[in-house]
Amino acid sequence: MLKAGVVLSEAEKENISVADFGLSDLEHQGGQILTFFNTDRISAKIIVLFPWQILPEHWHPAIGNDIGKEEVMRVRWGEIYLYVPGEPTPNPKATIPLKERENFTVWHEVILKPGDQYILPPGLVHWFQAGKDGAVIDDYSSTATDLQDGFTNPRVVRETKIIGE
Amino acid sequence: MLKAGVVLSEAEKENISVADFGLSDLEHQGGQILTFFNTDRISAKIIVLFPWQILPEHWHPAIGNDIGKEEVMRVRWGEIYLYVPGEPTPNPKATIPLKERENFTVWHEVILKPGDQYILPPGLVHWFQAGKDGAVIDDYSSTATDLQDGFTNPRVVRETKIIGE
Repeated sequence: MLKAGVVLSEAEKENISVADFGLSDLEHQGGQILTFFNTDRISAKIIVLFPWQILPEHWHPAIGNDIGKEEVMRVRWGEIYLYVPGEPTPNPKATIPLKERENFTVWHEVILKPGDQYILPPGLVHWFQAGKDGAVIDDYSSTATDLQDGFTNPRVVRETKIIGE
Repeated sequence: MLKAGVVLSEAEKENISVADFGLSDLEHQGGQILTFFNTDRISAKIIVLFPWQILPEHWHPAIGNDIGKEEVMRVRWGEIYLYVPGEPTPNPKATIPLKERENFTVWHEVILKPGDQYILPPGLVHWFQAGKDGAVIDDYSSTATDLQDGFTNPRVVRETKIIGE
């Protein structure tokens, strides 16, 4: 985060959460997340991915009166390979563990470099992977209800641990 | 922006807008604004202020079914003196042109340094000034409808010019 120029308050430094999605394979799948705020209308967080770390395939479903979370990913540092529905990209840059193949169903690739952003409409299935240097992402959205997200991988359990500095 | 680690796409560099609020006094009042996105639910922009530049007193009114813009200011670089309704702060850090005194009615001071953020609910009257080094602010909000904002100063005309690099 320091390299990306992200400045955190002392309280925030104590509240970075590590999401391993219950897969106990943080080296390949997971994310380090710091939520700046989450009101009943808007939310912003920073997502940090290790080199080649994957944020597993998921979507933000409708909940009650909410049509689902709208999300904008903007890369601050590093490179992101984002996958969404559409024509599968031949020779995608992502690499996934072979045994996880069935848990990744969308393969239309969008490459995001620093300063690039992508708007993800509610309900859109997506997943992404950092490139060789890892990545820092500004993640803007309507209200986040992460525990309600849908995941393709049936083994995913959405639960987070809080780490200190 | 470079000092604050803000990375822009080439297209964005061509789309920084300068808001002088029709006051033709950019040195004292105005702002340099780059909108990252503005959907029908969420918006994000970067606001850059010169040293001691003031963003004039204003509020985000209800419009149709919208109760008004909710805004979160987060300082990325420099120092901001934010003023909101409440007990007036004795000896505030802000300095305003004496002839503009009547156009600034709220004087409860909140000092924001890098990593600090403040949630502005819809309709709240507010204004802010950068400190001696200027400031770069991440500004998150629900849908922005800047042209509908209310301003205390009756001379304000909300209109922007676009500059290149």
